[in-house]
Amino acid sequence: MLENIKGPEDLKHLTEKELECLAHEIREYIIDVTSETGGHLASNLGVVELTIALFKAFDPPKDKIIWDVGHQAYTHKILSGRKDALKTLRRKGGLSGFPKAEESDFDAFDTGHSSTSISAGLGLAQARDLLGEDHRVISVIGDGSLTGGMAYEGLNNAARMKKNFIIVLNDNNMSISHNVGGVSNYLNKVRTDQNYTALKRNVEDYLKKLTKGDKLVKTLKRAKDSIKQMVVPGMFFEDMGITYLGPVDGHNINELTKTFKEAATVNHAVIVHVITKKGRGYLDAEKHPEKYHGVEPFDRETGKRITESRKSYSSYFGECLTELAAEDKKIVAVTAAMPDGTGLSGFAKAYPDRFFDVGIAEQHAVTSAAGMAAGGLKPVVAVYSSFMQRGFDQILHDVCIQNLHVVFAIDRAGLVGSDGETHQGIFDISYLSMIPNMTVMAPKNSSELRSMLIKAIGMDGPVAIRYPRGEAYEGLKEFHAPIETGKAEMLHEGSDTALFALGSMVSTAEHIMEKERVNGHDWTLVNARFAKPVDEEMVKRLCQTHRRIITLEENVLNGGMGLMVGKIASETDRNVEVLNISLPDRYVEHGDIDSLRMMLGIDSDSIIERIEADE
Amino acid sequence: MLENIKGPEDLKHLTEKELECLAHEIREYIIDVTSETGGHLASNLGVVELTIALFKAFDPPKDKIIWDVGHQAYTHKILSGRKDALKTLRRKGGLSGFPKAEESDFDAFDTGHSSTSISAGLGLAQARDLLGEDHRVISVIGDGSLTGGMAYEGLNNAARMKKNFIIVLNDNNMSISHNVGGVSNYLNKVRTDQNYTALKRNVEDYLKKLTKGDKLVKTLKRAKDSIKQMVVPGMFFEDMGITYLGPVDGHNINELTKTFKEAATVNHAVIVHVITKKGRGYLDAEKHPEKYHGVEPFDRETGKRITESRKSYSSYFGECLTELAAEDKKIVAVTAAMPDGTGLSGFAKAYPDRFFDVGIAEQHAVTSAAGMAAGGLKPVVAVYSSFMQRGFDQILHDVCIQNLHVVFAIDRAGLVGSDGETHQGIFDISYLSMIPNMTVMAPKNSSELRSMLIKAIGMDGPVAIRYPRGEAYEGLKEFHAPIETGKAEMLHEGSDTALFALGSMVSTAEHIMEKERVNGHDWTLVNARFAKPVDEEMVKRLCQTHRRIITLEENVLNGGMGLMVGKIASETDRNVEVLNISLPDRYVEHGDIDSLRMMLGIDSDSIIERIEADE
Repeated sequence: MLENIKGPEDLKHLTEKELECLAHEIREYIIDVTSETGGHLASNLGVVELTIALFKAFDPPKDKIIWDVGHQAYTHKILSGRKDALKTLRRKGGLSGFPKAEESDFDAFDTGHSSTSISAGLGLAQARDLLGEDHRVISVIGDGSLTGGMAYEGLNNAARMKKNFIIVLNDNNMSISHNVGGVSNYLNKVRTDQNYTALKRNVEDYLKKLTKGDKLVKTLKRAKDSIKQMVVPGMFFEDMGITYLGPVDGHNINELTKTFKEAATVNHAVIVHVITKKGRGYLDAEKHPEKYHGVEPFDRETGKRITESRKSYSSYFGECLTELAAEDKKIVAVTAAMPDGTGLSGFAKAYPDRFFDVGIAEQHAVTSAAGMAAGGLKPVVAVYSSFMQRGFDQILHDVCIQNLHVVFAIDRAGLVGSDGETHQGIFDISYLSMIPNMTVMAPKNSSELRSMLIKAIGMDGPVAIRYPRGEAYEGLKEFHAPIETGKAEMLHEGSDTALFALGSMVSTAEHIMEKERVNGHDWTLVNARFAKPVDEEMVKRLCQTHRRIITLEENVLNGGMGLMVGKIASETDRNVEVLNISLPDRYVEHGDIDSLRMMLGIDSDSIIERIEADE
Repeated sequence: MLENIKGPEDLKHLTEKELECLAHEIREYIIDVTSETGGHLASNLGVVELTIALFKAFDPPKDKIIWDVGHQAYTHKILSGRKDALKTLRRKGGLSGFPKAEESDFDAFDTGHSSTSISAGLGLAQARDLLGEDHRVISVIGDGSLTGGMAYEGLNNAARMKKNFIIVLNDNNMSISHNVGGVSNYLNKVRTDQNYTALKRNVEDYLKKLTKGDKLVKTLKRAKDSIKQMVVPGMFFEDMGITYLGPVDGHNINELTKTFKEAATVNHAVIVHVITKKGRGYLDAEKHPEKYHGVEPFDRETGKRITESRKSYSSYFGECLTELAAEDKKIVAVTAAMPDGTGLSGFAKAYPDRFFDVGIAEQHAVTSAAGMAAGGLKPVVAVYSSFMQRGFDQILHDVCIQNLHVVFAIDRAGLVGSDGETHQGIFDISYLSMIPNMTVMAPKNSSELRSMLIKAIGMDGPVAIRYPRGEAYEGLKEFHAPIETGKAEMLHEGSDTALFALGSMVSTAEHIMEKERVNGHDWTLVNARFAKPVDEEMVKRLCQTHRRIITLEENVLNGGMGLMVGKIASETDRNVEVLNISLPDRYVEHGDIDSLRMMLGIDSDSIIERIEADE
């Protein structure tokens, strides 16, 4: 079946049975591919029928489909002519793991972060209407993404649409981990209350039987919408002014297609509530969807990872925080739908009352932590660097103005690799360092992360620790000077050139030192430790004894540590040359981290070339 | 009455009549004060009884009251011992126009930006519970603030509270301008549908009369919550797991107090829906609440402003955009509850279909504009600098990755004066310049704003124009070189020292030039125009012919233009000295702009002193 599907038109003539067969083949193909490439598995298995039905009911790419978050678009890619290319998924030069307008006309809008699809879709629909075009816009959003406030801003505005705009709510009762909070409660009610339907039927029957003069009937008639109020699930949406259709079985292609076609006839915003099962069709993934959210290559039969990776910074962080929490009852942990990814699941188990997973809601994560700090707790907020961008105003406005003691554990800082542009954590030094009262640290290795966390919890005021995705660096453990605020650590005192390296770049700088040693150069290596405040005294000292300072950081130049070092150096001694090694002013696509580092010129060999070119 | 109120305890023994009388006096006092000082009037007049009732029902400062946005806390300040101090409102060294923990124990959490109070309050309540304390936490949020997604993230998490947490929904059916969208529709339904109550009564009566075997009764009983579903207003909140009380008349102190006391007995989150009238008690303000949202000093009798200000950048922007829109049908304008403040009310009138006021929802404003751009329109998003911080991730992730042509009109950039810390627009150059694909401009005067807007609309990709609050600079109009991307404008070519000034600092630099001319110095003055990309060629040229470059910008140093100029200069000729004039790494309190500039050292005299000290 799958072999013959080159585009959406090849679906149109298939029978119900054939479509089901196709769904099965797609599922097998996705499991095959992701077991080789890694990727997002459970969410993709959940939307196979949903995607087939969208392609059947609508006419993409003329009709625009926007996938919220976008990691669930594998079937979409397969059905839009990218089946074979899917084998290159998430590899450098291969298919992106997310929708990319550059990659295909079928990808109407790039996504990656959560809860953007309603806003983006609404913009596309408004453009359509003003330009007098005629096509459908469909935003597909998961119930997890509904915990993000931005989705609600979109819904609020969608209610004002005068023409068709379709929101498909893909409800699997899971965000990345288990879904939490009031909206989840609400949807759960809508989802499970079969009595709505029974009630509706009975009330209608009943009203027919009542005499016309009856007081209840009068009241019901006077209250214009009351029957609807009583019987329509999704009443909140209806009351907002958004038509609600559903709930629909998300694995029944026929029913889905029918409902989507009905939705297309509505002359304003309409929400189609679809119930799906994350991981559907792969038993282990159905049982443990969080384990199969984002996977590394694995063995299909056993479900086991093919390469066991070594211990990550995230695990070190989680372990250390759990230990510290035993001593200090005021320590609490906050995360935004990433209990596993941030290494906090152990903490959550040990201290359930002191663990707050707020859902995909970085804004709330930050400001509720500010409230906790104001109330006397010591909150540690663990969020990925690129997602923390959502909490920028809250850090600036709610934490730092009041100089509250909130610790930010900025995970996935620097290049993240296969997730690509939307997920690279290459801006946090900049967006954090510009904020008054903020302290920003980065550890050179796993044990320094530990020391920094202890330091941060013992400090006052806002403080961030940034560390990379994946395996922690275990070298240089012979260096363990106590962490002092704003103080760098001298690792080797040589001459001529000083490498002033931050966090992940310390090990790179170490390689450079080794290679230069072969060339007869005995350079200086400093572990910067603090991106803010930069160790001014150390920079001044280096200026007195060196011809050149090379700053190294895994962050964009603008707003980073390097320019501050440059300023201090130029104010100290204008004869000292400063060379800034940082990331270029561009987005960084997906690919393995080593290739990306080479491409961007921040691996040790490229840096040596840049240094030599600079001579 | 008012004379005798030194703190909340002085309220407790007052009779209903006396409290009403007090409310009247407070109202008169607020009108008196704000007519002298300027401030937020309409919103404060709306919550006089609400605040009195809070102080009567609760026990602040032990009980924590958090005011969302916070500009409506004047009665709160009056009742907590700051009545006389209110006369110094918003003046340098005087009372802040917002709650400030530093100012009083009664101010439980600093606010300023919208929609933070539920998150902050929840954090305080969680701290209370973990620390075993016993007090109430009350977040007071307006219906306007509910258009901000962050409030919804808070609500979603509030639903999980196992102990008391009180949300007071101050519903005046207005945000700053008229409220918009689905939530407004929803609240409107709850607010107006008197039939709910009638229905509830009748259904209950009816059920009593029905025989027990009746089918409807059975169904109703089976559907556990159905009666509630049918009859409770605010059902959405109830379904989320938040108890709903109301609606309550927000000008009836007795009823309010009673309901607040009831709310205090609930063992989880509870929302009290209070209906108030913005501007209440001052007729002109009741009729035109948006006019009396934020006021300059005015005449009590006539309502007229005492000093007429000259034309603002905002009006120039609005006029110009309206003109351009006549020619180019693809131009649309987007704002977030600031149609008047951003100068867009004329545009809104002329092109209602092309004007999108999305409510207090900066995230949605940005991403829906991205959608519009992807759909072929030319959106111009006009938002204040400090509020645009909320859209940071959306600019970075939804607009700039796809290099979409969205124009950002960053109003209130630089110091804003009397609104203080939360509203100063001193970070935008940093948070915008770090983003790949972004262009950032700032005009020297009103006509350059116009040229830049025309240029920006004619460009491709994301582009921001930042300009200050208030009166536009009308000087230097003899200089009007065409705007070229990344090109500065030479205003005067002298020698020795070159002033490289951005936007609002060009006129300051002009003053410096004049003063230095008296000292026999003929310096160079360059209008930088682009904070990003910085005009590298110009900087290099200046390096060849000058001993020193002084950069001037009204933004923090970190991430600003100055450090980039410094880097370019040091790479060109390390003998050239670069002095960066920018704002220090700290928050800036309220006060008149001139005093603030002096305090921060960015007025012409202070800068000259810094230059001389540097010699």
